[in-house]
Amino acid sequence: MATIAGSRRVRRTPFSDGVEAAGVKGYTVYNRMLLPTVFRSVVEDYKHLKTAVQVWDVSVERQVEIRGPDAGRLMQMLTPRDLRGMLPGMCYYVPMVDETGGMLNDPVAVKLAEDRYWVSIADSDLLLWVKGLAYGLRMDVLVDEPDVSPLAIQGPKAEELAARVFGDKVKDLKFFRFGMFEFGGKSHVVARSGYSKQGGFEVYVDGAEHGMPLWNALMEAGRDLDVHAGCPNLIERIEGGLLSYGNDMTRENTPHEAGLGRFCSTQTAIGCVGRDALLRVSKEGPVKQIRALRIEGDLPPCDREWALMDGQRQVGSVTSSAFSPDFEHNVAIGMVRMTHWDQGTDLDVITQSGVFPAIVHETFWI
Amino acid sequence: MATIAGSRRVRRTPFSDGVEAAGVKGYTVYNRMLLPTVFRSVVEDYKHLKTAVQVWDVSVERQVEIRGPDAGRLMQMLTPRDLRGMLPGMCYYVPMVDETGGMLNDPVAVKLAEDRYWVSIADSDLLLWVKGLAYGLRMDVLVDEPDVSPLAIQGPKAEELAARVFGDKVKDLKFFRFGMFEFGGKSHVVARSGYSKQGGFEVYVDGAEHGMPLWNALMEAGRDLDVHAGCPNLIERIEGGLLSYGNDMTRENTPHEAGLGRFCSTQTAIGCVGRDALLRVSKEGPVKQIRALRIEGDLPPCDREWALMDGQRQVGSVTSSAFSPDFEHNVAIGMVRMTHWDQGTDLDVITQSGVFPAIVHETFWI
Repeated sequence: MATIAGSRRVRRTPFSDGVEAAGVKGYTVYNRMLLPTVFRSVVEDYKHLKTAVQVWDVSVERQVEIRGPDAGRLMQMLTPRDLRGMLPGMCYYVPMVDETGGMLNDPVAVKLAEDRYWVSIADSDLLLWVKGLAYGLRMDVLVDEPDVSPLAIQGPKAEELAARVFGDKVKDLKFFRFGMFEFGGKSHVVARSGYSKQGGFEVYVDGAEHGMPLWNALMEAGRDLDVHAGCPNLIERIEGGLLSYGNDMTRENTPHEAGLGRFCSTQTAIGCVGRDALLRVSKEGPVKQIRALRIEGDLPPCDREWALMDGQRQVGSVTSSAFSPDFEHNVAIGMVRMTHWDQGTDLDVITQSGVFPAIVHETFWI
Repeated sequence: MATIAGSRRVRRTPFSDGVEAAGVKGYTVYNRMLLPTVFRSVVEDYKHLKTAVQVWDVSVERQVEIRGPDAGRLMQMLTPRDLRGMLPGMCYYVPMVDETGGMLNDPVAVKLAEDRYWVSIADSDLLLWVKGLAYGLRMDVLVDEPDVSPLAIQGPKAEELAARVFGDKVKDLKFFRFGMFEFGGKSHVVARSGYSKQGGFEVYVDGAEHGMPLWNALMEAGRDLDVHAGCPNLIERIEGGLLSYGNDMTRENTPHEAGLGRFCSTQTAIGCVGRDALLRVSKEGPVKQIRALRIEGDLPPCDREWALMDGQRQVGSVTSSAFSPDFEHNVAIGMVRMTHWDQGTDLDVITQSGVFPAIVHETFWI
């Protein structure tokens, strides 16, 4: 495995000093910024995440701030999810699509006020799409990337740790709701959310200067909880069916193909730029869709799309895969054609190290 | 130095198999794709690039294809460079700006026909900006990323090698002009261009299936020329003053601050979305600008912005730096305030490993 070359372009984060001191062993680049992928080992990180509490540098979830009189109208243009019920204090998972219905991102939107949103993005420069639309349509909004860097607290002991630093009121937060909590003399958005199924919070650290002080405060306060630096864990997120934009779905896919139909209310999402396209395809339903897959064998890393075969015919692809210590087989995410997506369907997967048997699994491992 | 984690999201290229077989030792991620940074060593690669010929996988220069009746009008909206003189067969280096005059990318535009362009991008999802504008302004264009992956042939023996594979006619190409050349039964754009000062070509390989055959053909044909796999070389590109978007300039900078005023003809670039903003600032001229800098001492890697100081006052920053074996000192690129940008100005640079003396250099090292 080659090393990653340092440069200003691949941005460090407000927490990078802490991440390095904690002995980060692997990185990926996400939104042109460093994202840790492993500290002790992926398996050790996985076991620890499921039993203790971790602090994650997820600064790569950059914010697109949309502010001004047209903010609400612009937000609805971006997504087929009906946002009329979204109130300040709420977070919504919002598939975002272009005019063809292709996914441009799958961010979490944070409604700060009627005229002010943060869009906490997955790996694409959504800012440029939003800026382009806003300019072209002469909308009365400001669109920018603020100095806000999320820090996640994840794991079964996350609530205890968060309460020690932010006070017991943080325990009252419902899932995908946020409140304002003080740290370092500044008020920060703290939401009950995060890219794991172990529960926890994301702190939208407002101002890089608060990064390391908060990191250190959490490490200090959680010492007896066995707190450790962590990061989104490949195994745990596949088990939990948490999709990764750019891996499991791209601009080539609709939200329906990505299995995100439950987050779309295209009929009533008036104004969404992809509405016409999505209404057209949703009449028929998708002809391929995300599925959980179980794969047998000693697999290589899934660093490219793997073809899913029925004999000589390609019927889909695998886009994420890892060996699960808890379930004792490989857990995987793939896109499978409707003719072969029923649970129990036997398929073959072609990897860079040979062919392995795969089977469509009923659900993710949650 | 941590390793880079593999995933489909960080895309492999049509040449990745060749890159790996050639023993790539380091990568960066650029446009969500793997870009090699070192093969033998950065210094060995540098010396070889200046004396022989290298083949570079620069697939990361993704193309934004703009096609249709409004293609020319849309292109002019994107840049303050006057494109009226651009004819099919020409490549133009075009700073691209938003409505504030901030740089969004610094691509090479390739005019294939009056109604068809490729924009060969630096590291930002320019596609999304162009799509957003085109949608918002209801322009009659198609905007997409085609299956085109540039392969560069760079070095003093590049012409000889290119001629062996594409025929002697390739030698007639003038700088920043392209022609159509056949390989593998398909016609490809071959331009005299590339991200080095050693001369050479970029082949816009049209179709991933032609990638490895061309890679292998070049390696085979160049054996006696000491051809080797290479990549953009940090030392050589700093010596040559080749800027790197995301390192040396960002959305925070105008083209004038980036020293790219000679590529702007803002007065006559009617339609450019940043025209008003740039006309406003160009009246006064920039108050900070890119400069070549010479730095003394045993520097750490420039993996973050370094502050440039005059005593206690910050007067700029360094964004790229490397030790030059040929010039026997550190060569660097920075942005310096007008009060301190004259050649010979003595400054201090604050790195993660201490403070070092810097001096504003008259020119780049070419």
